[in-house]
Amino acid sequence: MDDITLFHEKEKAQNFLDRIRGKRPLFVCVIATTETAKIPGLSAAGANPEITDYTPPADAELLLLGKCRCIPGVPVTPDGIPTPALISMSALRLARIPILVINAGSKVKPMVPFIDLGGSPGKDIRTGNAVEKVEEIFQNARILGEQLAGTSDYLVIGESIPGGTTTALGVLLAMGVDARGKVSSSMPNNPHTLKMETVEAGLKTAQIHLGEMKKHPLESIEHVGDPMIAASAGIVMGTSTKVPVLMAGGTQMTAILVTIAALNRNVLANVAIGTTRWITQDSRSDLKGIVSQIAKVPILAANIDFSSSKHSGLRIYETGIVKEGVGAGGSAIAAIAKSCGSITMEQLTVEIEKNYERLVGT
Amino acid sequence: MDDITLFHEKEKAQNFLDRIRGKRPLFVCVIATTETAKIPGLSAAGANPEITDYTPPADAELLLLGKCRCIPGVPVTPDGIPTPALISMSALRLARIPILVINAGSKVKPMVPFIDLGGSPGKDIRTGNAVEKVEEIFQNARILGEQLAGTSDYLVIGESIPGGTTTALGVLLAMGVDARGKVSSSMPNNPHTLKMETVEAGLKTAQIHLGEMKKHPLESIEHVGDPMIAASAGIVMGTSTKVPVLMAGGTQMTAILVTIAALNRNVLANVAIGTTRWITQDSRSDLKGIVSQIAKVPILAANIDFSSSKHSGLRIYETGIVKEGVGAGGSAIAAIAKSCGSITMEQLTVEIEKNYERLVGT
Repeated sequence: MDDITLFHEKEKAQNFLDRIRGKRPLFVCVIATTETAKIPGLSAAGANPEITDYTPPADAELLLLGKCRCIPGVPVTPDGIPTPALISMSALRLARIPILVINAGSKVKPMVPFIDLGGSPGKDIRTGNAVEKVEEIFQNARILGEQLAGTSDYLVIGESIPGGTTTALGVLLAMGVDARGKVSSSMPNNPHTLKMETVEAGLKTAQIHLGEMKKHPLESIEHVGDPMIAASAGIVMGTSTKVPVLMAGGTQMTAILVTIAALNRNVLANVAIGTTRWITQDSRSDLKGIVSQIAKVPILAANIDFSSSKHSGLRIYETGIVKEGVGAGGSAIAAIAKSCGSITMEQLTVEIEKNYERLVGT
Repeated sequence: MDDITLFHEKEKAQNFLDRIRGKRPLFVCVIATTETAKIPGLSAAGANPEITDYTPPADAELLLLGKCRCIPGVPVTPDGIPTPALISMSALRLARIPILVINAGSKVKPMVPFIDLGGSPGKDIRTGNAVEKVEEIFQNARILGEQLAGTSDYLVIGESIPGGTTTALGVLLAMGVDARGKVSSSMPNNPHTLKMETVEAGLKTAQIHLGEMKKHPLESIEHVGDPMIAASAGIVMGTSTKVPVLMAGGTQMTAILVTIAALNRNVLANVAIGTTRWITQDSRSDLKGIVSQIAKVPILAANIDFSSSKHSGLRIYETGIVKEGVGAGGSAIAAIAKSCGSITMEQLTVEIEKNYERLVGT
């Protein structure tokens, strides 16, 4: 399938693709917020920093309803570029893939049914005390993952948390993964310096040296991570003991990966990362460079291409804005794999354009 | 299978059984509380009226964890007889059937992951104003049901709400179903008079005549029902347009049935009731008599028999205490059907006894 690139650990990636071909997935979207997202210049997952609180619930609503409830329109970047949930929603609906929303700690509750894990919104990681009840979130998520494993042939897990690459960077650095300058961004000009300053401030307050938390993933999350990482790690661990898991996202997924690697490396044999070509071709981040420090986990990329779209709000994705989120790449991969390729990227693009017109306008 | 009796609409019942044989179900347990349960003498789903608030979350925990968290031991009747969740948990674990907990409005939150529908605990139906946000609960439940339909071959839906037969009676009478003296009870001596008085008080306060709400199920629930009925009706409606649904319970299920019948009768072709022989053989209630007034929906009964159990706390089920709840009968039917009969009632009874010994003692 030319629509999917085997980007890293190619043999394993092909293997994973063969295993999910024609099978029935369940898509879960883990939502949370972190005050970290409100540091000016850090996240483009909302028209302004304050409104990023509404992005995760609005994304969840878009997935389940095909439209948002808690905000008018759809979440946009400060430049008005629509959420990648538009891609996920289009792919999941086209392939009739069921969706569950999981709330790891969102300040605003989505106006759709969601699974609650008992978590609270994340605090600014500069406090060095970012996530409450990490153990509870993680354990609840693991219990949930064990049940979800029985409901489908495999799991696709995506996320919506503005500011999530910075909190991911926090966990990666605390655990000794050299992720400096390697995490992705929803902005074309990745604010690496600001992200590093933010993480370093958090590590300093928490009195943690780089790499000191190598064997303590939950503590790393507690100090400088976010609730999404704790929840997703638990879900992946609970599910992947029984069925394959496609971690749908960019560099944020590596913070989940390093958490799992420290707790139970064995389950990673059942895991792949599915993302977009905007991530794998990004020169300002290095997903492969982070993953290869953690484990031999394959990376697949959906070759979504908006360069000939009639809508400027989609064409602009080609300049490196947004790139990934809400499991966009993984959703596209799952839709294609479920249909054994009878859903093509071309068809998916038409569907995305239709939904764009309906939700954003022409 | 002698372990399952085709109790009502036998041909349809056999048909339903044929359709689910060897298939993969999902079990959902809908929990809620109603202040109605605290009317002395109405419910035996707790050691005393006040503690009935803990029965639904404790049942949910028992299903997911094999033990309770929010209370020591397991929920018991005032005489110390354990919750029917013991049966459900044993059946679902034996047959490896996945479980999701759905909170329609429980005063105490379970200490496990659960799906939230935005509901609140039910009030005493004598207020004539029993359930807030019925429409929201129902619509959220329907959205959820549509997604759940994609996660399994069929759905088994059970409930845990102390006092639930009285609120069911309220909805049935408001909607013109002659259920007087026909709803079941967790007590051997069914307090029919007290239940009628309670419902009549509620109808009087709400200024509703018997049968006046025939075409208004959600209003009936709002005045004299409970959050579980609204949630379950939405879930069944959302799911049964796509896959079969086994409504796992006794006479409480008929309040859900009459709600659905008023909103979209067509989906009932995909629905069956699954219960225990303690319900179908009960001389103090009449499940068939209620169902046959609503629609041609089949009833299947699990022939669970504790008469030769070594534990008095199980043998006493044969005297008509407890009878059903937390989808006990439907869980047993689903376990047998999923295994194509390789799980027998005998095996299930051994499993229940093992769990009884572990949780209650010998």
